[in-house]
Amino acid sequence: MTGKAFQDYYPDEFAHCYGCGRLNKEGLQIKSYWDGEESVCVYNPKPFYTGGFPGYFYGGLISSLIDCHSAATASAAKLRAEGFSLGDKPLSRFVTASLKIDFLKPTPMGTAIELRGRALEIKGRKIIVSTTLSSEGEIRAKGEAVMVQLPEN
Amino acid sequence: MTGKAFQDYYPDEFAHCYGCGRLNKEGLQIKSYWDGEESVCVYNPKPFYTGGFPGYFYGGLISSLIDCHSAATASAAKLRAEGFSLGDKPLSRFVTASLKIDFLKPTPMGTAIELRGRALEIKGRKIIVSTTLSSEGEIRAKGEAVMVQLPEN
Repeated sequence: MTGKAFQDYYPDEFAHCYGCGRLNKEGLQIKSYWDGEESVCVYNPKPFYTGGFPGYFYGGLISSLIDCHSAATASAAKLRAEGFSLGDKPLSRFVTASLKIDFLKPTPMGTAIELRGRALEIKGRKIIVSTTLSSEGEIRAKGEAVMVQLPEN
Repeated sequence: MTGKAFQDYYPDEFAHCYGCGRLNKEGLQIKSYWDGEESVCVYNPKPFYTGGFPGYFYGGLISSLIDCHSAATASAAKLRAEGFSLGDKPLSRFVTASLKIDFLKPTPMGTAIELRGRALEIKGRKIIVSTTLSSEGEIRAKGEAVMVQLPEN
């Protein structure tokens, strides 16, 4: 994936997130893009984001990636549902109301993971996003996030 | 809280987690202790673990803290249920099968949060842990984790 990502369209004052903010120099700076109806993010973490056992992701990183990718998916899906394209206007800001993660199998370090998200339901200010985290051809974790749009300033 | 924490009793080969591993020099290194039937962890993150808006925790950090504290609570609760005290033997290792977080209100940076966990159910190798994350006297997030004990080597 190349070009500008969903997160590149966040307003500056909302771009400081450790997980996805382009203005957070210490952070993960994940980037999400459309692939048809799905949102995609590819990410390969630094080696110290390991779990209890060296060589595997720690659970909090998996939750963080799914959470931030879900927020971006909600923002982009809302824009699309309103008939706009990326860049037409700043993305709406969504925050997480709830997040459920199922950890299906360990996620090895040293190889990129792929997140794939989908907006299951768009109802007013609320969007439910379903996401899978895969690597080496296997789904390692699944997430469902309830995202809520913040009022515009 | 002083003295040795739950995480200080993890076996070395399981002590590399970015969230709670005492051997992960880059990580959060959270510390959990008993307070009666509840497990407690106090934590004040570095300023760059901010959410989209500067000044508030990012959601992934909240998930990470609850996840790691839940794993520690499960390990310590299992030991206690078997009639042992901390230090009698190495803690069992638990991994997260599922994690549900409800984000109730924003969590401000610059002030310590307190996690309080409780083992709701201990059934064989499975322990359900309920956790609250509070600061400034208010519960900011709640979590429920299903933790599964790994087989001993």
